[in-house]
This record gives sequence, structure tokens and C-alpha cells, in this order.
Amino acid sequence: MAQQVQRRRLSEERTAALVDRLKALLGDRCTTSASEREHHAHGESYHADAPPDAVCYPTSTEEVSAIVKLCAEAGAPIVAFGAGTSLEGHVCALEGGITIDLKRMNAVLEVNAEDLDATVQAGVTRKQLNAYLRDTGLFFPVDPGADATLGGMAATRASGTNAVRYGTMRENVLSLTVVLADGRVVKTASRARKSSAGYDLTRLFVGSEGTLGIITEVTVKLYGIPEATSAAVCAFPDVGSAVQTAIETIQSGIPISRVEFLDDQGMIAVNRYSRLSYPEQPTLFFEFVGTEAGVAEQAERVKEIALANGGAQFQWATTPEERSRLWQARHDLHYATLAMRPGAKAWSTDACVPISRLAELIVTMREHTKDVPFYVTSLGHVGDGNFHMGFVIDPNDPVEFAETERLNAILLERTLALGGTCTGEHGVGSGKSKYLRAEHGDAAVDLMKTIKAALDPANLLNPGKVLPSN
Amino acid sequence: MAQQVQRRRLSEERTAALVDRLKALLGDRCTTSASEREHHAHGESYHADAPPDAVCYPTSTEEVSAIVKLCAEAGAPIVAFGAGTSLEGHVCALEGGITIDLKRMNAVLEVNAEDLDATVQAGVTRKQLNAYLRDTGLFFPVDPGADATLGGMAATRASGTNAVRYGTMRENVLSLTVVLADGRVVKTASRARKSSAGYDLTRLFVGSEGTLGIITEVTVKLYGIPEATSAAVCAFPDVGSAVQTAIETIQSGIPISRVEFLDDQGMIAVNRYSRLSYPEQPTLFFEFVGTEAGVAEQAERVKEIALANGGAQFQWATTPEERSRLWQARHDLHYATLAMRPGAKAWSTDACVPISRLAELIVTMREHTKDVPFYVTSLGHVGDGNFHMGFVIDPNDPVEFAETERLNAILLERTLALGGTCTGEHGVGSGKSKYLRAEHGDAAVDLMKTIKAALDPANLLNPGKVLPSN
Repeated sequence: MAQQVQRRRLSEERTAALVDRLKALLGDRCTTSASEREHHAHGESYHADAPPDAVCYPTSTEEVSAIVKLCAEAGAPIVAFGAGTSLEGHVCALEGGITIDLKRMNAVLEVNAEDLDATVQAGVTRKQLNAYLRDTGLFFPVDPGADATLGGMAATRASGTNAVRYGTMRENVLSLTVVLADGRVVKTASRARKSSAGYDLTRLFVGSEGTLGIITEVTVKLYGIPEATSAAVCAFPDVGSAVQTAIETIQSGIPISRVEFLDDQGMIAVNRYSRLSYPEQPTLFFEFVGTEAGVAEQAERVKEIALANGGAQFQWATTPEERSRLWQARHDLHYATLAMRPGAKAWSTDACVPISRLAELIVTMREHTKDVPFYVTSLGHVGDGNFHMGFVIDPNDPVEFAETERLNAILLERTLALGGTCTGEHGVGSGKSKYLRAEHGDAAVDLMKTIKAALDPANLLNPGKVLPSN
Repeated sequence: MAQQVQRRRLSEERTAALVDRLKALLGDRCTTSASEREHHAHGESYHADAPPDAVCYPTSTEEVSAIVKLCAEAGAPIVAFGAGTSLEGHVCALEGGITIDLKRMNAVLEVNAEDLDATVQAGVTRKQLNAYLRDTGLFFPVDPGADATLGGMAATRASGTNAVRYGTMRENVLSLTVVLADGRVVKTASRARKSSAGYDLTRLFVGSEGTLGIITEVTVKLYGIPEATSAAVCAFPDVGSAVQTAIETIQSGIPISRVEFLDDQGMIAVNRYSRLSYPEQPTLFFEFVGTEAGVAEQAERVKEIALANGGAQFQWATTPEERSRLWQARHDLHYATLAMRPGAKAWSTDACVPISRLAELIVTMREHTKDVPFYVTSLGHVGDGNFHMGFVIDPNDPVEFAETERLNAILLERTLALGGTCTGEHGVGSGKSKYLRAEHGDAAVDLMKTIKAALDPANLLNPGKVLPSN
């Protein structure tokens, strides 16, 4: 359904010659099979498929460098691919070319328990890393819904429910190894926890979505597993009082680890899907971590704030089993939402505003969506001002698709008017580049284009992503 | 004493013509007086003075833009100047030109208490901001020793004692307004707490030391003043056991707000200066914040860790008066060190390594410095692996100066060999650019140079800083 744009393509002849050279390098780890090309034509979103001409599976930074050098010589576009779970068309090969699938670069290279850091190849997933860490007493907290790769999470500046306490990939990447557009390899920083030694190359690549270089190794911060964890759920009479509770919690400096909002529609879906009987009202899910006494005290103080804002039925969960039952309801929302309309797909929006404007934004959007002919839920990482609406649509129905596009545009226009950002954690991809000038202004977007032109003058790295064409 | 390098100078004629135009723009807020030029010729370090040809005092981003445009037309170097407290020669006008002193841009523009952020002009100092916030229950935590400006702190990616809990300027700047080399004005981000909307321009400028643009406004995160605070001090038999205590504290996930190390020489200086009677041994200073019960529990757990590592005389301070007496000893170290040799100056080193290597680094350097003919103290922000040695020297004595240079070179060579960084928080300036290639490798430094050339092709913004000339 996405708009068709006239794009460059490498000639079949030159593509074939490049593939020959890549096969000489990689053997059967370079493939042009139709099923492999199709698998790499899309992420998990509604964007139109765009297959690459070939897919490569390197196993080392040196191989990625060699692939990039061959592509650069041939003038072929290069798309990096991790778990394929992105939501804004990041991995679509809009101009064909070569997709570099990093899933075979899945070694945990180094865990420094005393320094609370780990270095992994880019294809290691967050769950794989945490499984590897199981016996160390440490964990890696950044948790987007999908089991994404660390490379992909760094590339999209991903976050999730823990960001309110532990930060996003922006805060949690210490260093990257990156292959530049000409094949040179850069290590962006040391493992030191802080540094003032020159430009912040790490954060230049975090969030660059494969358009400035290919991330091949990631060094991340780790954290000690908290001694004590407690969770609670609380229903509120309206959206405003739920969000106000989150604001006051954050403002009090209570080091809450999670505070998640679900609207009444979300709770209806969750109750039906998981046969639960939560009040079908705007609801907050909380998690507290720390020492035993600290957790108890945090939780008690949040309860006071919630009750003062009209919250009711504050339900605790302190054992791992109770906690996991409580959070299951939250984590099941995606599937619960889809189950409201069998066969449909979910279009997930991703707005983030200063927290004081969040209630207003959610209320406005619920007003705009109250009469649409499909199911809509709202979910918020409210501690960060980030929220997602889930539109449960048939993406092949042009009317529903157009209506969703219209609502997404209204959402983002309101978001920017409230001082927010068009994407809190999903990234720009090809889906949101048209909003960048409205968000950042021309001078900032032109500066991004200056950086892109300096680092990738031939525009071979993930072309058509992040930056608007005009 | 610094090496003299042949540098560009704008001709006297062209400089005079530029100053005429700047005076037409700013009136007596552009000056060429000898005392003003001398005042802006240096920071607070040992680097040789280098005065600008004129000093401008803009009051708005628009004026900074107009000044930069005039300088760009004339081809004149431009140096940004905040509180003048930098330690690596950042503000020396190595090629003359125009210094833009931002101290009259000292308005707090906006405090959003609900969103926990504030926007200030670049010339606002950290103490000024915290005084302004006094009645809000909020504070800004980043605390380099000096009362630096927020613009200067952003430009050098500054930190201080609170970084172990609250992060550095890298984590605490939400957005910047920056004047580019051609006078265009860029706003780097919205006030949203997180965003995946394009390249991270904010962090491109944080730590760029005035070489990529002039920071004119800064939006920072604020925090609720903790309900409870407690502090303690504990002596250890040796450096290793003190640092091991810090490691175990961090690794346990105890959310300590400060953990500062002073060596025996530092404690001798402090005792003498402040007439105290602390044990003259390696010592840790701790601060805990949170709720009442949480703080008590954190402190008790750290005490257990300290005692298990041979710590003794764990002294508590819970009232504000007791705390301030305890921290006074720590904060007085700079003056206490200087008082060991009246008339001398302190050369402060700034190494940062992964925490597991810190004890080794400190012990090695104490060995190297044990026979030097001047006083040396060691101070560490040990939770971050960052430590400073204070060499109390006569900078006009070529032998002492050369010896200090030699020791600093040994320190940094060891630091890099241990996987660390040549500057944890002071920045590169002109003093440390020669270490960048050893730290980052040629590809990374060349990439920084590519970025510099793309953003400032005429090399007018703070020339001779950050990047090595070769």
C-alpha cells in the first residue's frame, strides 16, 4: 500500500557480477533464493515488501567489511538485517541490492562481570544475552517487545518497559564496532563508563538505522539483578488520573522500574484473551526493584499517590509467580488485541511527548478514534511519555488502511504540536521520514543530510531510510 | 610551556574591519581591551595563554548567529567561552580571532516541573540553576568541581561526583540550540525523554568543545530532591581494598549516589588543611539517597561490604550539618592539596578505566610518583572508574613541568593499555588531542575529522582543539 517511488536499481548484469564475487567470498552464505529474498523483504509491519537481490550471512566483522567493499565497488545498496522485527520498514530493500543478515554473528564475545559490561556480536538477541548471563547475577534490561538483536536495537535506538529506570539503547550502549560505507572498521569507544575524548561516535551510530554504517559488535552495560522485586496493578476512573499518578511517581524521585498504562479497550482485550477479571478501566501496571525495605517503601508511597488520584483495587504481587501472572496480562496485549479480530494485523503507532502532555494526547486520540470501524487499544510507557495505539485492521482493505494513515497523521501532528517526537522507540525507517522536517526543522534535517553525505557519499547504506528525499 | 605551533592568523587589517562590523552590531559589547583579551586567553590550567583579537558578549542566539556569520565572512576563528574553568586549554584562542563570551546569556528560560526539565541559556551556571530551582523540590545533579556554565559543561561532556547515579552531561542533556559554522541555528531535539527520530544531533554536540557549533541554549533533565540522604566515610588498609569495596557496591546494584576515593596523601592534606583527624589511609566517602528505609538499608549493606574488605571506622552522617562537615573534607581537597605548597599550582590528570582495572592503575601510578620532588594526591570518582592525580608544581619550573608531562604521559599510556580513556570528564582541548589516535584508532579519528570538515569546512570553530593536526 505504501507509495511507490521511482528508485535506482543496479543493472542485472552488474548485480550478477557482484553476486559472483560475494559467492567467491562467502560460498553458500551468499544466496539469491526466492524464499531468502522474500524473507528479507520486510520486517513485522504493514510496509510493502521490497526484496534484496541477494542475502549474505557473514560471521565476522572482517567479512562484513569485505562485503561492503565489494558492494561499494559495484555501487550496490546495502541493507543490514537483524531479527527482522522492525516496525517502520527499516529492512525493506527499497532499491534492491545486498542484505547483510547478521544472525550468524551471534557470539557473546566477552562478559566483564566486575565492570558490568558485555560485548556481543550484533546478531545476539536480548533474550540470548540474558540466558547467557543467567549464572552471573547480572542482566541486560532493555526490552522491546520482540526478541530483537542487540545490533538492531542499537540501530533503532530501541527501548521498552524498563527504560524509565534503566534508559534506552542510547544510555546503555558503551561502544560499537561499525563497518563504514567504504569498508573501514571503526571502534567507537573504550569500555570506560564515561569519556570526554572527542566526538560521540557511539551515539552517532545508535539510532542511525544502518544508514551511516553496519554495526557488527555491541558493548552494553549490565546491571545486578535486584535483590527484591514487587509489582502491582491499579485501576483508575479515567485516563487523566492514571497518567497523573505516573507523573507524580516520577516527580517524587521514586526509582520505579516499570510503569505501564493500558486503556479500557486494552483491558477488555486482555480480560477476554486471558480469562481475567480486571476492572475494564484505565489501568497502571507498576514494578518496583531494590532492597526488600526499599521496595516495600516505594510501593507504599506509590499506592498513596494512586489512591489520592482515585485509583482503586491496588493489587500486589511479590512472589515470582504472582508477578508473572500480573505482567502476563500486560505482555499479552499485542496478541489479545489481535484476537479481538481474527485474521487482522496491528498497526502500532509510536508517539512520545513530555509527560505533562501525555494525558491530553491520549484523550484527544481516543476522541478521534472512537467511531472507527475497527478495534483500537492504547498502551503507554507512561514514565517516559511514550505511547502506542494498536489499530487492528485488514491491511489489504484500502479504506481501513487509508483511515489508519489519516489517524496516524493526526496523532503525529498533535504530538509535534505538544513538543513531542514522531517516534519514541520504533525508529524512522521509511514510514516516518516525512515527519522529520516538521519535528526537527529544516536546519537540523539538512545537518543530518550533511552528515549522511559525508559518511556515505554514494548513498549505498540503507537508502530511502531515515532522511526525507526532499 | 606548551609547544609553539605555527598557526594561521587573520591579517590586522581584516581583523580591524571585522571588529568594526561587530561593534556596529553589538556596540560596547564587542571589545578589544587588553584586559578583556587577557582574561579570555586561558582557562584554569597550565596551558600557555592565547588571547583572542576581540571579545563579544551576545545576549541571544540571534546575536550569536549574527556574530558567527560576520566571522565566517571574514574567515576569523571563533572561540566560545563560558565560565573559563576548563582544564585542557579549551578556550585559548590559538589562532586569535573572536571569543564569544556567553556569560550575559544567563537567563533560565523555562522550568517544566511536571516534565522534570529546564531550558536555560548557555551562560547559566549549575549553581545558578540550582538556586533558581530551590522552591521547586527539584535539582540538577551534574557537579564538576567548578561552578561552570551549562553550555560549557555540555561542550566538554562534564560530570563529577554524582555521575555514578545520575550520569554525565551525555545522559542529562535533552536538547541543545546550536549556532552552526555558517550561522544557521539548529534545535537538536524535542523535550521528549526519548526519541528514535533520526541522528542524535544532541550528543554530536555534547563533548564537541565548540568545534562543531556554538551551544546557545541547553535543555537538561531535573530530578526530585531525595526524601532522605545519608553519608559515611570509611578508611581502608590499602588502595585495592577501597576500590574493591566500590566495585562490589556498584555490582550489587545498590543505587549509591556518590562514592569517592581519596588516597593517604589526600587525607594527609585534608587533615592538615581542615584540622581533622581522619585516619591517613586510603578512604572512601559515600552518599546514599532515597526513602528513609531505603537509605538505611543501602548504607547497612555497603557497610557490610566495606567491613568484609577490611574497612574500619565507618563513620555516619545523617543530619545536613554532619553530612556537610564530612563532604567538606572531600570538597576541600583541591585547596588542601595546594596548601601543601604555598604558591604552587595543581596539574590535574583525568584518566578513566573499566572499574576492574582502577586499583591496578592507581597503584602503578603511585609507584611511579613516589619519589617525585613535589606533592601528589590521588582522587577517584571510583564508581565510574575515573580518577585524578593532583601534581602540586611550580609551572614556571621547567624541570617540574617536564616531569609532570612525563608522568601524565605514563598515566595515559597505562590507561589506554587497560582499555580506558585519556579523559573521563575534563575534555580534550589542546592538551590531549595527541592521545586520540592511540585511544580511538586512525579510522575513528579520521571519521571525527570527516565530520568536522563537513560541519566546519573552513575550520573556524575553536581551531586547534579536540582533533590532532596530523
